[in-house]
Amino acid sequence: MKYVRFQREGRSGFGVLEQENRIRVATGEMFDRPQLIESTLPLERVRLLPPCNPGAMIALWNNSKVQIAKFRRETPEEVLYFLKPSSCFIAHGDSILYPKTETKRVVLEGEIGIVIGRICKMVTAQQAKDFIFGYTVVNDVTAQDVVKRDPTFPQYSRAKGYDTFGSFGPCIDTEVDPLTLRIESFINGKRCQDYPVTDLVFNPYEIVADISRTMTLRPGDVITCGTSLGADPIVPGDAVEIRIDGIGSLINHVVE
Amino acid sequence: MKYVRFQREGRSGFGVLEQENRIRVATGEMFDRPQLIESTLPLERVRLLPPCNPGAMIALWNNSKVQIAKFRRETPEEVLYFLKPSSCFIAHGDSILYPKTETKRVVLEGEIGIVIGRICKMVTAQQAKDFIFGYTVVNDVTAQDVVKRDPTFPQYSRAKGYDTFGSFGPCIDTEVDPLTLRIESFINGKRCQDYPVTDLVFNPYEIVADISRTMTLRPGDVITCGTSLGADPIVPGDAVEIRIDGIGSLINHVVE
Repeated sequence: MKYVRFQREGRSGFGVLEQENRIRVATGEMFDRPQLIESTLPLERVRLLPPCNPGAMIALWNNSKVQIAKFRRETPEEVLYFLKPSSCFIAHGDSILYPKTETKRVVLEGEIGIVIGRICKMVTAQQAKDFIFGYTVVNDVTAQDVVKRDPTFPQYSRAKGYDTFGSFGPCIDTEVDPLTLRIESFINGKRCQDYPVTDLVFNPYEIVADISRTMTLRPGDVITCGTSLGADPIVPGDAVEIRIDGIGSLINHVVE
Repeated sequence: MKYVRFQREGRSGFGVLEQENRIRVATGEMFDRPQLIESTLPLERVRLLPPCNPGAMIALWNNSKVQIAKFRRETPEEVLYFLKPSSCFIAHGDSILYPKTETKRVVLEGEIGIVIGRICKMVTAQQAKDFIFGYTVVNDVTAQDVVKRDPTFPQYSRAKGYDTFGSFGPCIDTEVDPLTLRIESFINGKRCQDYPVTDLVFNPYEIVADISRTMTLRPGDVITCGTSLGADPIVPGDAVEIRIDGIGSLINHVVE
């Protein structure tokens, strides 16, 4: 099923996508026995929200085999991550604000996001699947020149934490096999990224296991698995799409 | 006033500390016109919670003048920060869990924490005071050997994000002048840190202004201002106290 959250007439709700672009409305809690009800809504009559409300968005660095080969980096021995603040989250259809006084180079980063479904600490990769609710599409937008602006301290949380730099959605798919998926990114319809989940050094199950050694993961937390080659610059006016066939297409426009 | 949050008979509430260790109970929202009511509770009859529920805990690196001088670091030109996950927050009186399979060196870091009171973006240092609700005491507990465990990526979010590594409280003081305060840290009663807020490169107002260039700060967000010299190791069995006269004393015991 493909879960979405939405806003309509000032109220938020959630449900699952059905055929002909309709949402079947659900009640209760998305991560605790949601109940689908009779009511449906046409997708074009609602505003989509980010599909969940993460307590933490954990984002990986250096998790692509081809990127490591190209840049002659070391393959990491453990998952390397930083956090993105909740103030940066936006949904499919929202605008990415280009902070032009702060940066001269903003890039997209198309990624697959893991959505946690159950409280999770110290699990193995074999157990991890039982704690994952589903998968979403993430654009880990980055002010690339800000990361290395200070020579002594890489500023991941600042460079990737500008308001609107954490786009994810449009839905959470609970049925896909992540290992079969590909991530594609497009700027104004032109493809700049295309890589399979199997390019990742640590796959989603290994990632959940590794991070759960450190911190308790909670329902709705999102782990975005890191990007691959082709994370190209975006500028005001661009239409930016991250697409994972099997999950959906996440589209945002860049504005000043 | 000194605001606290507490739990009693399975319910959480908040209020302000009064004389003789009593809490005057409040209703409504802490950051939106809280109302003090007649009811009071003895402090020893409640369990303290972290004094607020931050959407983000932003933590500074390299913000002490004497530390920069001693380690011959560069004075930063802007605030350098990472994020601590909400899963690591604990209150005064809670235990710090030593993750012995992960680290051989855990240190305390006594710091002053800024608590945001109003939504805040792109403010100046002169305006910042109006957006600050008050100040709290923070122990930014750190697995120091984990920070540099990977040679290519400093792991601040992991090393400082272990469950229980984000202790803050016991209260938020809304009246102190932060520039007059000192931070002291004690391990089993022995003082290892003692520095004034004036040792900070960026003072609290400058910090809020700087970070608000990047991200929208929201009521309850905590910015912890970075530590100074004397961030000593702690081990299971230790009683760890961070004290800021004028705010309060934050005590936690370390357990395996």
